[in-house]
This record gives sequence, structure tokens and C-alpha cells, in this order.
Amino acid sequence: MNVSGRPTRTIWPSSDGLAVEIIDQTRLPHAFVTARLASLDAAAHAIRAMLVRGAPLIGATAAWGMWLALRADATDAGLTQAHATLLGTRPTAVNLRWALDRVRAAVGRLPANARADAARRLAVEICDEDVALNRGIAAAGLPLLQTIAARKRSGERLNVLTHCNAGWLATVDVGTATAPIYAAHDAGLPVHVWVDETRPRNQGASLTAWELLNHGVPHTVIADNAGGHLMQHGQVDLVIVGTDRTTATGDVCNKIGTYLKALAAYDNGVPFYVAAPSPSIDWTLRDGLREIPIEERDARELSHITGRRSDGTVATVALLPEGSAAANPAFDVTPARLVTGLITERGVCAASAEGLRKLFPAP
Amino acid sequence: MNVSGRPTRTIWPSSDGLAVEIIDQTRLPHAFVTARLASLDAAAHAIRAMLVRGAPLIGATAAWGMWLALRADATDAGLTQAHATLLGTRPTAVNLRWALDRVRAAVGRLPANARADAARRLAVEICDEDVALNRGIAAAGLPLLQTIAARKRSGERLNVLTHCNAGWLATVDVGTATAPIYAAHDAGLPVHVWVDETRPRNQGASLTAWELLNHGVPHTVIADNAGGHLMQHGQVDLVIVGTDRTTATGDVCNKIGTYLKALAAYDNGVPFYVAAPSPSIDWTLRDGLREIPIEERDARELSHITGRRSDGTVATVALLPEGSAAANPAFDVTPARLVTGLITERGVCAASAEGLRKLFPAP
Repeated sequence: MNVSGRPTRTIWPSSDGLAVEIIDQTRLPHAFVTARLASLDAAAHAIRAMLVRGAPLIGATAAWGMWLALRADATDAGLTQAHATLLGTRPTAVNLRWALDRVRAAVGRLPANARADAARRLAVEICDEDVALNRGIAAAGLPLLQTIAARKRSGERLNVLTHCNAGWLATVDVGTATAPIYAAHDAGLPVHVWVDETRPRNQGASLTAWELLNHGVPHTVIADNAGGHLMQHGQVDLVIVGTDRTTATGDVCNKIGTYLKALAAYDNGVPFYVAAPSPSIDWTLRDGLREIPIEERDARELSHITGRRSDGTVATVALLPEGSAAANPAFDVTPARLVTGLITERGVCAASAEGLRKLFPAP
Repeated sequence: MNVSGRPTRTIWPSSDGLAVEIIDQTRLPHAFVTARLASLDAAAHAIRAMLVRGAPLIGATAAWGMWLALRADATDAGLTQAHATLLGTRPTAVNLRWALDRVRAAVGRLPANARADAARRLAVEICDEDVALNRGIAAAGLPLLQTIAARKRSGERLNVLTHCNAGWLATVDVGTATAPIYAAHDAGLPVHVWVDETRPRNQGASLTAWELLNHGVPHTVIADNAGGHLMQHGQVDLVIVGTDRTTATGDVCNKIGTYLKALAAYDNGVPFYVAAPSPSIDWTLRDGLREIPIEERDARELSHITGRRSDGTVATVALLPEGSAAANPAFDVTPARLVTGLITERGVCAASAEGLRKLFPAP
């Protein structure tokens, strides 16, 4: 999507062909800084230190990291070592293992001197596939927004609420939850986005707001507490969120707080959609609440926060009394009964085993 | 309640008898600083700049402010001026007008030279009344916690979730939502409090956590997003929140985000209680959602945050991209259908016109 009017991805090969470049997302929204990754270690660091984040983008970065590694050492030992190093960066991200396994399987068959080039081609392919998936979600979701817009008075804005960042910054481009939003905006619909701040990591305030601002989509950041009130007063036409893991029955594991918005949407008759690319679906799971373990992250994400001082420098401050404990569960599970529909790259379906089976007969 | 082991109120006459002292709540949780108010202007500033906040404490401070004013000028003109000055500090706080009208009516009948002393006695009385009201809520609410604790295994903690600060810092002492919690703790129940951070002003993280810490009540601060997940997993035994305004039918207007917790409690069968002292009941209102206007506060409360740097100094940082808008509705309305009961100073009742009428037959 656009950054200062220029189409931009989150990861791209450098123009000299010797490295890969990324947006350093730890610097957003206070500074737009790119980083050049020219080695396995640089790629591993970028994932570990969260310069890149979001499952699809982590996978893509890992694939590029395999190329960087194989360029230096394309032996079997080098291949094994690169796979292990990158896999260890974020052990829980599903797309990470998937991308690494895919590259290892494809290049392992080749002679050493052909491996780096093959890995490079595969990295490009993985990135393009991600964008194609998201464009599929955009195409599937756009009619939902068009239908609601058609019911509105001329000039009246279409209010979409989203939680966390399931935007292009979490992917290679376009995003998942944001895909229908960008499609609607680019098609000329008067879309306006309520951006949940998304404590404790503030991905909404830091990342979603930044990307909407740069692409020119009208938006307003709100406290996570505010969405229910807005829905009670008719200020939200629909909710679209992402998903980290979707069960075969349509339960959705997404950023902590998603469940509360689903409850409020249900209570107020507001459609609640989940943008769910098929790689997010775990066909082995039937009961999200009982089967999905929830990651408990560092309490420091809640107790400290980083922002921009008036002189432009960035500072971190502590928010809690010294001595108070904090807990930080990172995800919650929204039961399928609260989800109006899943927006997949193959179309929109009911959040149920039947709904998913119609679109994905043989997963 | 206790601060460093010493029983403390939020406002008290200075030992030299010449002024009133308060806790400067703008400095919490990073520093415990008291301020001495020796004039009408100092009292007005304390309310306006939110050194004191919380409807009951604002009322109490205003009453003391009338004494300070009348000590300097007890003429009719001085009385009128003091009333107007203090009323203008926070025009929306109900208790503010109530306390000011009460002092003016009582002392206006007296000769000028008797007015200051009378105002002082009334300020003491208003403070003591507030504490008595809260002790009534403590007595009414304690059995609810005892009943739940009795069903638990020995040593298992009793988990109460609260939102915002309806603690002793919002009142003269004891608090409203915290009253049954302190009573349970002091009675030896193994109570543990989940403290909602309460964005955007962070009253939970800054004030509720601080007062629980100082009184020795085990607690854990969580993001506002986390409560639903904790309820889904049986980690919350009951919710107790405060109320800024309660309708005659039991709808509750409280800090933004309360409604989301009420929805989650209802969805998970967790009792959801509201500590509602009778002065919070507006007998003229029947429909909270339609009749209570919601204050929209400065977006800067969301876009900026203040915390403690590692060197101990306090700093304010900006959180949003420059150019992103923010909205900040300060309250929401929880419909009576989601409220398990109202804890009043006269006992617990159903959140309904019938329930309230039984306790308050002639309001």
C-alpha cells in the first residue's frame, strides 16, 4: 500500500540484488526507517527483535533469510543450520515453520551451487502468494461493504471497526482484515475506520493508524474500551478483524480483546466478520476455547510504554506503581456463534464446519 | 485506607487548623505527594486540575473550599462568589453542585461572623457521611464475597475484577466498588483483584493498583482487553464496578468499557455487581442509553500518556502517528439486564425499578 504516496511492501529485494530490505516496524509510528538484511544473522535478528511481525510477514522474511544463508553456505550443513536458526527466532509462529520447511524441501534436492538462486525464487513466490491471498480476501469482502454503503444516505460514511493490526504491515502487502477496507476506499466508498488502540502492544495505534494514514483512509483511534459504546449508538456498521488461528468449526483465536468486541457486535446486531486466509485455518481443531493454548507474554508490555517526546526523541516510561503485578494474555478465542462470517480468499462463509467445508471441500 | 501502613483519607484538615490537605492524585502512582489548600483559589485549582477527582471527593473538596473562602470573606457577595467559582471548576460533576448548594443554604441563614465555622463543621460532616455511606456498601457487599469464598477450596483465592477507580481515592475513604473488597480482605478472605488498566486515563493502573498495593490487597493489573478471556477460563468469580449515574430502572452509566465487561460476565455466568451509593441514583431517568449524554473528553488523553522514566523522573509521550485523529468518549451505559445486582448502602437489590423501590420507597 502507499507510504507518502508511493506503493510499498513490507519486504523487498534491494535494488543492488545483494540483500533484502524491510520496514523496521519497531520504529513505527514515530519514524519510517528501512533496514537492509544482508545475512542470515540479520534476518534472524529482524524476526526475533520484531522489526518484522505478523505471521505472513514472518514467513516471508524467513524465506528470504534462507536465501541469505545459502548464499554464504549452501552445503547440507549450512541448510540445516539456517533452518534451525530461523526457526528458533519465534518458535510459536505457524507460518515461520511452514515457509522454512517449504524452502528446505525445495532446495534440498538441488546441488549446492543451485540452492541459493532457487531459495531466492521461492522467497519471491511466497511473497507474491501472500499478496494474492490477501487480494482474494479483498475481492470477497468488498461486496459486504458495498451492500452496507448502498443502504446509507449519500455522503454518509461507512464505519468499520477493527482491532489490532491485521493490515498490510502484518503481511507482505494489502493485509487481511484491511484488505476489504482498502478495496472499498480505492473503489471510492466513504469508508472510515475506528481503530482500536489494542493494548498492551498498541498495534492499532502504532501500526494500523499509521498504515491507514499513509494510504489516506479516514480513521479515528479509540481506546479498546470505546467500541461497545459506539456500537450501542449506531456508530459502527461492521467489524472486521484478523485471526491468528481459526478452528475447523469457525472459532477464532485473535488478539486479546477481540472476544469483547464480538460480544458487543452481537448484542447490537452489528455484523462481525473475520478475515481468515486459509493458512490460518487449523483443520485439526474443533473447540478453540479448550484446545488453543493462549500465550502469556511479558508483563512489561503492559507495565511500560514507548512514545515520542515533544522534542521528537522516543522514550519508554513505566505506568504502574512499583510493586504491582501485571498479567498479559496475548490472545483470546471468539466462539463461532458470535462470528457473522469468515472472509476467506475463496469467498465468505459461515463460521461453522459446514460453512468452511463448502469453500474448502478437501483441505 | 492504609498508605505505608498508616490509615489515610483523601482529604483532611491540617494539624494547625488553618488549611485542608489532600493527596495530589496527579502525581500517583509515581509519587505520594500531599498538597495544602489554604484559599478558595487553591481549592478551585485542586478540583479543576484534578489533584482530586471522583464525584464524592470533588463534593467534599468543594465543601472545604467554601470554608476557606468564607474565612477570607463571609459577606453575601463572598458566599455567592465562592459558590460560583467552585461550581465552575467541573461543571458536570453532580456531587459538586449538591455539596455547594448544601453549604450555601446552611450558612446563608447565619450572620457573616458565624459562617466560616458553620461551613467547616458541614465540610467535616459531608466527609464523614461519605465514609458512612461507603461502610454501608462494604457491609452490604461483604456477604456476596463470603458466599463465593465458602464454595471454594481452602486457600483458593477469590478473584474480583474491577474497572476504573471506584476506590477510596475517588471518595473520602473506603471507596464504593472497593468497599466490599477491603472488607473481605480485612476479614481475612483470600481476595485477589484483577485491575483493569482503564484506558485512556489509566485510573486502574495508576490509582486502583496503588491503593490496593498500599493497603496490602493482592492484585494484578491487566489490559482492558483481557477480562473476557479471564472470565472464559474461570479466573473471575465476580465483577464489582462503580457508577457515575444510575437510572431509576437500574441502568448504569460508568467509565467507558464497563459495558464490555458486563457483556462478558453475562456470557460466562459471572456475577456482575455495581456499587451504587444512593446519591448516584438519578430518580428522574428511566432509559440510560437514551437519556444520559456521554461526555466526549480531550483526545489528548488517548494520544499521550505520562509515566516514570528509569531515572525516576516523569515524562509524557505521544503514542499516535502525527495526523491520526482520536476520539475519547468517557462513559458508557450498561443496561440493567446485564447487572446482577446493585450494592447500595441499604443492601443489595435487583437492578430494576422494583428492586430499587424496595430499598428506597420514597427517594
